[in-house]
Amino acid sequence: MTETNYQILLKSRPVGWVSEENFEYAAGEMPAPGPGEILVRNKFMSLDPYMRGRMNEGKSYVPPFAVGEVLEAGVVGEVIVSNNDDYAVGDHVTGRLGWENYSKSDGQGLMKVDPDLAPLSWYLGILGMPGMTAYVGLMSIGQPKEGETLFVSAASGAVGSVVGQLGKIMGLRVVGCAGEDSKVAWLTDELGFDAAFNYKTCGPVYKKLRELCPEGIDINFENVGGEILEAALWQMNDFGRIIMCGLISAYNDKEPAPGPRGMALIVQRRLKMQGFIVFDHQDLCREYMAKAAGWVKEGKLKYRETITDGLENAPRAFIGLLKGENFGKQIVKLD
Amino acid sequence: MTETNYQILLKSRPVGWVSEENFEYAAGEMPAPGPGEILVRNKFMSLDPYMRGRMNEGKSYVPPFAVGEVLEAGVVGEVIVSNNDDYAVGDHVTGRLGWENYSKSDGQGLMKVDPDLAPLSWYLGILGMPGMTAYVGLMSIGQPKEGETLFVSAASGAVGSVVGQLGKIMGLRVVGCAGEDSKVAWLTDELGFDAAFNYKTCGPVYKKLRELCPEGIDINFENVGGEILEAALWQMNDFGRIIMCGLISAYNDKEPAPGPRGMALIVQRRLKMQGFIVFDHQDLCREYMAKAAGWVKEGKLKYRETITDGLENAPRAFIGLLKGENFGKQIVKLD
Repeated sequence: MTETNYQILLKSRPVGWVSEENFEYAAGEMPAPGPGEILVRNKFMSLDPYMRGRMNEGKSYVPPFAVGEVLEAGVVGEVIVSNNDDYAVGDHVTGRLGWENYSKSDGQGLMKVDPDLAPLSWYLGILGMPGMTAYVGLMSIGQPKEGETLFVSAASGAVGSVVGQLGKIMGLRVVGCAGEDSKVAWLTDELGFDAAFNYKTCGPVYKKLRELCPEGIDINFENVGGEILEAALWQMNDFGRIIMCGLISAYNDKEPAPGPRGMALIVQRRLKMQGFIVFDHQDLCREYMAKAAGWVKEGKLKYRETITDGLENAPRAFIGLLKGENFGKQIVKLD
Repeated sequence: MTETNYQILLKSRPVGWVSEENFEYAAGEMPAPGPGEILVRNKFMSLDPYMRGRMNEGKSYVPPFAVGEVLEAGVVGEVIVSNNDDYAVGDHVTGRLGWENYSKSDGQGLMKVDPDLAPLSWYLGILGMPGMTAYVGLMSIGQPKEGETLFVSAASGAVGSVVGQLGKIMGLRVVGCAGEDSKVAWLTDELGFDAAFNYKTCGPVYKKLRELCPEGIDINFENVGGEILEAALWQMNDFGRIIMCGLISAYNDKEPAPGPRGMALIVQRRLKMQGFIVFDHQDLCREYMAKAAGWVKEGKLKYRETITDGLENAPRAFIGLLKGENFGKQIVKLD
C-alpha cells in the first residue's frame, strides 16, 4: 500500500489517435473524506473503449473528461475510512471513481460487492458493466429466438465474449470474429462459439460471413463498425436486428467516416438498427446480475482478463485496448 | 375506349439512371378471361419510386420485373367482363395489374373501391398504398408523442405529404423539405407544416435543420437518404426514431453509396433506425383506411396529383418522378 495518491490526468485532448502524450502521471493529494464521505483504496480499474469518446469535446451521453483533471473509470476498491453509516471499513465497493490510488466518495452510485463470490476484478467485467451491456443489448434490441444466427464482432472482448456465451445459453447459432488467431481459437474451443474467424486475415469479411452464416444473420451485435458492419449488413436476414453497442473502428477518426454502403438494405429487409446505453436499462441490469453469478458457477459463462500492473501503465494499456492488443477484459491492478 | 391493348414492357435493365430506352411500347393481345377470371379496363396507373428497384436483377422484397414482359403497377379500373361471382361488370377495383390498357385477373389481391367516396385515382394515392405507407411507418416505428418534432424528406411526395399531415393530426411539430419553392410553399400554406425548406437552395441541410428544429428531431421519416439523412442524423434527439421508408437518392446508383457519416450517433443518442414494408402491417393498413376517408372529408388530409395522360407517356413520367419533377402523387391516366 502506497502512501502517495498517484493520479492520471487528461493533459490534452487527442486529435485522431490517442497517445501517451495526452496523459499526465502525477503525485496528487491524499483525499480527506468529509462528513458523510468515505475513502476508498482503489484495487482494480477498468479500461473501456467508450472512454475514448469522453476525451473529445462535445455532447455525448456522458460528459467529456476535463483537461487537467483526473480521468474517471470503473473501479473496485476497499473502504479504508468511513464517515458514512452505509459503509464500513473493510467493505468492498465498485463504482465510477478516479484513475488514482485513493478516491473519496459520498457513496452515491457505489455498490457493495462480495469478494467471496468472485475475484474482485470480475465486478469490472463479467459481473459488471461489460456483462450487463452484453445482456441488455441482446435482450432489449436483439430479441433472440432459439435457432436464430447471432454474429458478434470484437467477440473476444469484454462485452463480445459475454454476448456470444449468452447466445449459446439461449440456443442461438453463434459466429464471432476477432483480430488474432489465438482469440479466434478461444472463441470456438473454450467459449463454445459455433464458428469464428480472424477478420484481419480472412479475406473479404462479407465472403467469410456468407460461408459461416449460410442461413443469414438474424442478430448482429456490433462493437466494431466500418467494414465489418457493412459486411454484416449484406448478410442480414429479413427482420434482422443490428445492436449498435460500439464502433471502436471509428473512435480515433478525426472526421466521422461514412457509414456502411448498402443502407437501402435496411428498407428492403426491414432491418432494425438501434443504439443503446446500458444505464438506461436498470431492470435488465438487475436481471442479469441475478442470473450471471449462477451461470459463472455452472461454467456456462467463462471469462478472461488482461491485467496490467500499475497505474503508471494505464495509458499504454488503454491505447493497446483501442488497437485490440488486449485479450479479454482490460484491467489495471493498482496496488 | 381503345380496342387495342397497348402495353409497356421492360426492354432492358437500366444501368445507373433509367432511360426511355429501357422501355418498349407495343400493341399486345387483348386478354381473354377464362373460367373464374375477369377482364379489367385500366383507368389509372400509379408510378412509384420503389419500381426502380424492381428493374434491377437480384433479391428484394418483391421479385424483379422480367425483361421482355409487361411491367406491373398499382391500377384502378373497371370490370368489363366477369366470369367470377365476386365481381360484377361495372365494379371498380384496385390492385397490382399491368402497364397496359386491359388486364385479366382471377380476382386474387384485388379490392373493390367506391367511385362516389373519392375520385378513382385517389385509391392509388392518399387512399391507397402511399397513404397506408405513411401511416404504417409513422405509427409502427415513429411511435409519435404529442409535442415531438417530426422531419419528413420528400415531403411533397405521395407518402411524405400524408406523413406530415398525419403528424399535425397527432399534435407534432412538423418540418419538411422538397426540391422546388412551389412545393415548399404548398407544404406550409396548404398542408399546415410548421416549417419547410428547399433542400436544393438552402445551403447546408444540417444548418437549416438546426435552425428549423431548434429542439432537435424526434422522428425522421426518411424518403431520400444521402446528405439529407446524414443531416437529420446530426440533429436527432436522444431516443429518436428514423423511419426508413425509401432512399430515392440512391435508386439510380450503379454501386451502393456509402451511408451517412456519424453512425456513432446511433449509439450515443440511442437512436432506432428501422426499415419497413407496408404489406407487413395489414392491421395498420385497415386502421388507416377506416380513418383516412373521414380525415379527407373533414379537410384534415389534403391531396395533390400529377396526372400524365396516356400510357405511352408513362416511361417519361417515371423518369421525372425519380428526378422529383412531379408535384404530389404521380398518376398515369389510361383511357
